[in-house]
Amino acid sequence: MSKLLIVGTVAFDAIETPFGKTDKILGGAATYIGLSASNFDVDSGIVSVVGGDFPEEYLQMLRNHKVDTTGVEIVKEGKTFFWSGKYHNDMNSRDTLATELNVLENFNPIVPENYKNSEIVMLGNLHPLVQNAVLEQLSEKPKLVILDTMNFWMDIALNDLKEVIKKVDVITINDEEARQLSGEYSLVVAAKKIHEMGPKYVVIKKGEHGALLFHDGQAFFAPALPLEEVFDPTGAGDTFAGGFAGYLAKTEDISFDNMKNAVIHGSNLASFCVEKFGTERMQNVTEKEIKQRLLEFRELTQYEMSISK
Amino acid sequence: MSKLLIVGTVAFDAIETPFGKTDKILGGAATYIGLSASNFDVDSGIVSVVGGDFPEEYLQMLRNHKVDTTGVEIVKEGKTFFWSGKYHNDMNSRDTLATELNVLENFNPIVPENYKNSEIVMLGNLHPLVQNAVLEQLSEKPKLVILDTMNFWMDIALNDLKEVIKKVDVITINDEEARQLSGEYSLVVAAKKIHEMGPKYVVIKKGEHGALLFHDGQAFFAPALPLEEVFDPTGAGDTFAGGFAGYLAKTEDISFDNMKNAVIHGSNLASFCVEKFGTERMQNVTEKEIKQRLLEFRELTQYEMSISK
Repeated sequence: MSKLLIVGTVAFDAIETPFGKTDKILGGAATYIGLSASNFDVDSGIVSVVGGDFPEEYLQMLRNHKVDTTGVEIVKEGKTFFWSGKYHNDMNSRDTLATELNVLENFNPIVPENYKNSEIVMLGNLHPLVQNAVLEQLSEKPKLVILDTMNFWMDIALNDLKEVIKKVDVITINDEEARQLSGEYSLVVAAKKIHEMGPKYVVIKKGEHGALLFHDGQAFFAPALPLEEVFDPTGAGDTFAGGFAGYLAKTEDISFDNMKNAVIHGSNLASFCVEKFGTERMQNVTEKEIKQRLLEFRELTQYEMSISK
Repeated sequence: MSKLLIVGTVAFDAIETPFGKTDKILGGAATYIGLSASNFDVDSGIVSVVGGDFPEEYLQMLRNHKVDTTGVEIVKEGKTFFWSGKYHNDMNSRDTLATELNVLENFNPIVPENYKNSEIVMLGNLHPLVQNAVLEQLSEKPKLVILDTMNFWMDIALNDLKEVIKKVDVITINDEEARQLSGEYSLVVAAKKIHEMGPKYVVIKKGEHGALLFHDGQAFFAPALPLEEVFDPTGAGDTFAGGFAGYLAKTEDISFDNMKNAVIHGSNLASFCVEKFGTERMQNVTEKEIKQRLLEFRELTQYEMSISK
């Protein structure tokens, strides 16, 4: 089993959806990635930062899921990163109501000694300079570096982002972000252009419309599981990335064929994430439920067809 | 092999896309359905109506594809149905610039004697009363009746539409239409509600986001093939329906498992339709090209995963 290093926010979120709203609850890219990857029983550790206001019980919850939190710096006198957003009725778009960077503003990530040789590195959504600073601290070249990012960094730190994108093997972004980064509307052409920026693998997340994996002229598609109700989409993309990275860390096989399975696992886990507010569902999803839903994915996507020459 | 009866418009279209525009060219739901189904070498016949302005060579082209046009009434003194539309830059939305019903206004469909015992009936987009009038003329209960419709009929003839929907086995509509017809946003819930209206099978077409087949609590999903360029989406939904119906007519197997294949064949043929203006690509697509792309669909969707108990 490979060691998985996770970088990203550990945060407070306040979320409003058509189904209700929350006060400040646990959120953050690294939180979702860590919880998702924990379903593969891998040795994973988070590099992040929180303020003195962050409850120790949240960190304990992550540790209970076997996520190492040694790399989560606690700035006693600081406040934790806070994001607040409101989803529209279609759940596909949202307004950001508040973004308070707080301790993130001057974050210098420090990778714990025993994660400097991680085989798989998942650079979750954060300033590209922070993502890069993590890569620079590694003692060995990882087997696979995966980067997730957002349009926000394309807007304010595009050059820094392009520098770190050069160094990664896989990039996971959503469809609109792929279009923004490449300047191309067609996702096929966008993936090609992003491929030329560095990553050998490009994963384009389309939310309820599934995810596409592109590599070297090949493409693989995983749908999102059709659900009766999407309660809260927050963290679904990070949960996808965490499942993707966690599965690859567990299986130690980074072939394209195995990445197809990683995409399915990511989609599968994301389908749970959206069923409750925040991380609630991901904290208690069981192995049995996960397997059951993998069987549903198989029914949803697999068919028998003989194609004659 | 089953006989396939196709009802729908045979028309003139004038299309504008970001790539260019056309004068009046051949269009119509039945045209696309017939051309698509012809790839399965089935005995198919169209019931429709055109005006005296409709070129005989268009009908000849359909006959060259072994589509029987005996049931296409020619109203010498009338004008052919004309639709004109302009696609937006994203190709997912369009404005209708003109709709001239012309000979469609007083159309009384007449099913040719030798198609009254068709095993598969494809009711393409037309007034629900016309679709119903065709069903009333059949001498035997078909093995499978498939209905395609549009939001237009939900707006102006909802009760007539609901009456004919009661009588069909499969309905194919797009996502927005499914939402309008059911009053539900979730496509899973929408499919359930539409199922309760009559059809045992509900196909929801999502354009570039693929198609979902629902039946009795089960779901199957086929993506659209990711393309570098969508040139003209006109007729893609009809081409999908024609491929779906044609494949079922050819294989004479209306099990859910075989319908999965029918959905793949429909998506596959639709991927060609959008590559050129109007029916151009569907007039010359070859068996070899179709098979090649079925292999691409397999690569795109199929994976090997063992799921332990």
